[in-house]
Amino acid sequence: MPTVPLKIGLGGVGTVGAALVRLLHDKRGDFAARTGRTPEIIAYSARSSGDRGLPLGGATYYADAAKLAAVADIDVFVELIGGADGPALAAVEAALTRRVPVVTANKAMLAAHGVALAERAELAKVALAFEAAVAGGVPIVKTLREALSGNRIQRVSGILNGTCNYILSRMETERLPFEVCLKEAQKLGYAEADPTFDIGGFDTAHKLSILAALAFGARVDAAAVSVEGIESVNLADLAAADELGYRIKLLGVAARTGHGVEQRVHPTMLPKSSALAQTMGVLNAVSVDGDAVGSLTLVGPGAGGAATASAVASDLADIARGIVVPAFGRPVAALVESERASLQRHEGGYYVRLSALDKPGSLASIAGRMAERGVSLESVMQKPADGGDVSHASLAVITHATSETAIREALALTVEDGVVRGKPQVIRIERP
Amino acid sequence: MPTVPLKIGLGGVGTVGAALVRLLHDKRGDFAARTGRTPEIIAYSARSSGDRGLPLGGATYYADAAKLAAVADIDVFVELIGGADGPALAAVEAALTRRVPVVTANKAMLAAHGVALAERAELAKVALAFEAAVAGGVPIVKTLREALSGNRIQRVSGILNGTCNYILSRMETERLPFEVCLKEAQKLGYAEADPTFDIGGFDTAHKLSILAALAFGARVDAAAVSVEGIESVNLADLAAADELGYRIKLLGVAARTGHGVEQRVHPTMLPKSSALAQTMGVLNAVSVDGDAVGSLTLVGPGAGGAATASAVASDLADIARGIVVPAFGRPVAALVESERASLQRHEGGYYVRLSALDKPGSLASIAGRMAERGVSLESVMQKPADGGDVSHASLAVITHATSETAIREALALTVEDGVVRGKPQVIRIERP
Repeated sequence: MPTVPLKIGLGGVGTVGAALVRLLHDKRGDFAARTGRTPEIIAYSARSSGDRGLPLGGATYYADAAKLAAVADIDVFVELIGGADGPALAAVEAALTRRVPVVTANKAMLAAHGVALAERAELAKVALAFEAAVAGGVPIVKTLREALSGNRIQRVSGILNGTCNYILSRMETERLPFEVCLKEAQKLGYAEADPTFDIGGFDTAHKLSILAALAFGARVDAAAVSVEGIESVNLADLAAADELGYRIKLLGVAARTGHGVEQRVHPTMLPKSSALAQTMGVLNAVSVDGDAVGSLTLVGPGAGGAATASAVASDLADIARGIVVPAFGRPVAALVESERASLQRHEGGYYVRLSALDKPGSLASIAGRMAERGVSLESVMQKPADGGDVSHASLAVITHATSETAIREALALTVEDGVVRGKPQVIRIERP
Repeated sequence: MPTVPLKIGLGGVGTVGAALVRLLHDKRGDFAARTGRTPEIIAYSARSSGDRGLPLGGATYYADAAKLAAVADIDVFVELIGGADGPALAAVEAALTRRVPVVTANKAMLAAHGVALAERAELAKVALAFEAAVAGGVPIVKTLREALSGNRIQRVSGILNGTCNYILSRMETERLPFEVCLKEAQKLGYAEADPTFDIGGFDTAHKLSILAALAFGARVDAAAVSVEGIESVNLADLAAADELGYRIKLLGVAARTGHGVEQRVHPTMLPKSSALAQTMGVLNAVSVDGDAVGSLTLVGPGAGGAATASAVASDLADIARGIVVPAFGRPVAALVESERASLQRHEGGYYVRLSALDKPGSLASIAGRMAERGVSLESVMQKPADGGDVSHASLAVITHATSETAIREALALTVEDGVVRGKPQVIRIERP
C-alpha cells in the first residue's frame, strides 16, 4: 500500500532524539500500516553535524533549530532540545507560526509558556502534543486529555521524578544515607551533576502543573505549586515510616479542595498497600480520581531514551492520522484561572518526628500542645535517641486529619517550651 | 460559545446505559467545552418504554434497536445491549451501513464479529470504538491502539474479570471456600445467576482476544484462546501459594513466542511483589510489555455502571472531535492471521500440588519422574495431608521453566506409578 510520507523536522539529537531516530527507522513499515503515512526525518538540528552512527539518511543538518522550524519543508516539528526558553521556544514558535504541528518533551517550556503555545497552536489549527513531557513512557497525558473526558477529576497524584524515587527506594531498602544514594544515582546517569532541579522537587512541580491543567481545565500555573524536595528525608524517617506501615515518596498532588485547587510537591508518607507506595526505583506512577471512573493508576518507565521516544512516536502517530485535540483537552478560551489553595489551609494526616528531652513531663507537654490546637494523635512511637544520647528520646507521631496551621502552631509552641531539640521533621500523609 | 449538537442513539438502558444517560446529562457543558459538540440522546431503545427516572428528555423510544439505528437522525449509535449476535449485532450493522459511527461495550460481539465490523466501519470511513468492552474504566484499548503506536508489543497480560478476582481475593484473605465466595459475589451483584461465563474464563478470553488483536495487529481470534476457569482452585492452593511467595489470579496472557502468538486464560501464580498480584477485589489490571516502553501497567475499575460509562463517554468525545482511528489500530487489510501457538509448547514455571503416598520412596519416585522429563525443581514443600490422614502427605512443588508437555508427561507417569492419590493440581506461573 503506497503511503504519503510524514516529513519530520527533529530539533535535538540527545538521548531521546537518538532513540526516536532509531525507533522511526526500525518501525517505518508498522507506523505506515497504522497511520497511512511513512515517517521520514528530513531535517535535524544539533550542536554539531558530526556523524552519530544514526540512520539519519539524507536529513539536512541545521545548526539552528528555529531556522529548521522556519524554513524546512516539514509536516511536523519535534522539539527535544530542552530549556524553558531559548532555542527550544524559538523553534516551537517558528513552527506554530507556519501552522506546522509540534511534538515536544519539554516540561519546563510547557510549565512556563504552555498556555501561550496552546493558543498559537489553536489559532493555527494544528496539534501541540506533549505525551513525553510528563512521566516518560506512561501515557498519562492522553489518558487525562482523552480517555477521562467524561470525568470531573477530583485529584491527580504521582511519582513523577525517577531520580528522587530511585534515591528514596535505595535509602529505604539498603539503609544508605541520602548523599550516598545521590552519588550512586549520578554514577548511573539517573541524576544530573547539579541535581537541585530533580531532588529539590522542581521537575516534579513542572510536570504536576501540566497534569493539573489537563485534569482541571485550568491554565498551567507552575508558580502556584508549593514545592519541597527530598533533601531533608533521612534514614530515621524511613525506618519510622516502615514500622508505622508507610513508605516515603516524593509526590506531586493536585486536588480540588473547598478553597480552590491545591498543587503541592513534597515528601509524602503513603500506606504501603497503595499502588503509589509500591512504585520502586526509577519507575513513575500516576493515580487519578474521577467521579465516574473512580480511581485509576498507571505505572511505567518515567524516563530513558526508548520509553520517552515511545511517547513521542505516539504523538507523531496521532498527527499522522490527522488528529488534533486541544493541547490541554479544552480550547484555551475554556481554560479557567485556577483558584490557588494555600498550603496553610491543607488538611490531612501528618507524621512528626522530634527529639524530645527525656524527662518526666516532656511527652505530656508535647501531647498537650497538640491537643490545644485540636490535633489528635493516631499513633505515637518513642525510642531512645540514636548514638546512646540518654538525655533525649526520638518521638515519632502520626496525627489524624488536621490543618497545616494547627500542626505548625503546635510544633512552634513545643519548640518554645524547650522540650525538644532541633527542628521537628514534618511529613504529610496521603491515603490514596 | 454555541456548539453543534452530537445526536446520540442509545441502544440499551441497563446499568451502563442509565449511567451514561446521567453522565452526559450532568456533563453536557464540559463535554461541549472539550469537543465543541453538545451531547444529546435523541433516541433510545429498551425492552419497554416505561419511565426510568432518567433525564431522557424528548428522546424517541424504539422497541427495536436495529430500527433506531436504521432510521433515527443520529450522529453516533451507542450499543449497550449485549450478546454476540441478535439485536446488538443487527443494530450495529444497521448503523455502519448508514455510515453512522458506533460505540460499543460488547466484547462478546467483538470477539465473534470484530474483524467484519471493523471492515464495515472502514468502508464507511467511520469509527467503531469499544473502550468499554475491555477492563471497564481502564483505558487499555486507547493505550494499545494509540499510546503504544511506536512499540512492538511482546506480551499483554491482565486481570480482566472482576468477578473472578473478587472470588479469589475473598478466598485468599478470608480463607473461605470457592462456593461461599461465589454466593457472596452473586449476592453483591458481582456475579450472574449462571456464573459459568465469568468463572469459566470465557469472559476473560473474549477480552483477551480483543487486546491481542490490538497488541499484535492480528485478526481477532477468540477460538485460539486456551481457556481454564477458576473452579478448580482451592484453599490448599491459595495457602501454598502464600507460603511460597505467590498469589493466584485468573490471568489472560497473550504473548509472542518462537512458535506464534500464545493466547491463554487460566489460574496463574504471580509473585506477590508484581503489580498484577497486588490487584485485589473487583479491580482490573493490565500489563503490557513493549520493546520501546518497557513494562506499563494500568489498574482500575473493570466494571460498574459509572466506570464503564466513563469509557463510553471518552469514545463519544473522540467521535465528537472527528477522530477516526482504525478499530484495531491498523486497517483490516494490514491485520495478519495470527499463528496460533499450541499450549503444549508453552514454556514456563509450574506449581504442582499432589497427594503423595506417605511411605519411603514416594518423594524419590515423584522427583525421579520429573528429572526423567528434564523438569528441575525450584522448591518443594511437604506437609501432612488435611484431616489427619496419615497415609498421604500433601506435596507442593515449584518447577523451574519447563515445557507443558514435560510436566504433563511426568505427572502422568507419577499417577501410573501409583504413588499419588487423585489428580495432581497444576497451575502455571508467570513472572511479569
